[in-house]
Amino acid sequence: MEKPAALEELIQALRCLPGVGPKSAQRMAYHLLQRDPKGAERLASGLTEALACIRHCARCNTFTQAETCSLCASPRRDAALLCVVESPGDLLMMEQSQSYAGLYFVLMGRLSPLDGVVKEVILATNFTVEGEATAHYISEMLAGKGLAITRIARGLPVGGELEHVDSGTLAQAVLERRPA
Amino acid sequence: MEKPAALEELIQALRCLPGVGPKSAQRMAYHLLQRDPKGAERLASGLTEALACIRHCARCNTFTQAETCSLCASPRRDAALLCVVESPGDLLMMEQSQSYAGLYFVLMGRLSPLDGVVKEVILATNFTVEGEATAHYISEMLAGKGLAITRIARGLPVGGELEHVDSGTLAQAVLERRPA
Repeated sequence: MEKPAALEELIQALRCLPGVGPKSAQRMAYHLLQRDPKGAERLASGLTEALACIRHCARCNTFTQAETCSLCASPRRDAALLCVVESPGDLLMMEQSQSYAGLYFVLMGRLSPLDGVVKEVILATNFTVEGEATAHYISEMLAGKGLAITRIARGLPVGGELEHVDSGTLAQAVLERRPA
Repeated sequence: MEKPAALEELIQALRCLPGVGPKSAQRMAYHLLQRDPKGAERLASGLTEALACIRHCARCNTFTQAETCSLCASPRRDAALLCVVESPGDLLMMEQSQSYAGLYFVLMGRLSPLDGVVKEVILATNFTVEGEATAHYISEMLAGKGLAITRIARGLPVGGELEHVDSGTLAQAVLERRPA
């Protein structure tokens, strides 16, 4: 049987979602058209809206709709602490662990100069080859600037990524950070 | 931390997908924005396009972009056989089991008169309370019209739905259909 072209295209498009294979994509497409066209409409406009509105914070690079994000703008965060993460998703996981009250810098593949107010930099990159190399590179770059440079330590399994770790484990890793 | 409103809305909108809870929706939203904005764009237009183009076949009710679907239009299908299914997704599962070469009628909650050419009606509704009741109702309606009325039999587990059954099991169920 040939599926209608627009249906086949929708199935293919759904495969851009992480963890969605051909069978799940097919089930999702039929579900939306059969049972939830309103949901499909909401998802289409949600995607379009997010792509149009979401940009990167001018200070920390995380996702925001304003010039700077709500974290960078908050007077309640400790500006003497900086936590370096690889992506906005990793920042979110750190926040959800409720173990950190400082500011962030989201690498997004870029590095940017620190502004002299920071006293400690926590390197919260993943425990992967790339994350370790990034942490090593940053700590070398920052050596001799009078900063405490720490690396989150215990809790994350070897090879693991922040996105897949539970909050408790991540909180432990923050508490037990040690000099890099 | 407050997420940007457009990001929060995208996460909520992703929850219309079957099997996607709050944690998966969050991961999907961050994945799309961080790593696959092109995929997000394709998904948005795929959804919009499918909602605009896909309608129900005038003969069998399944999804189509034309007036009638490719199955109803095909001269190679056996027009003496009709298989009644509950939804377009169930029709697709029947086709993928490659065990049936007749025509279909997709209920979509509606019933429609048969046109006199059909010799056998296979009731392929789910083995759920609703599916059984529907099959019973249809077989009562068709009684005394000189049609063979059969019900797919073995293979589908009790309480199961066509969408979640593998093709081999479904093929077996079609082969072993018996009078309703």
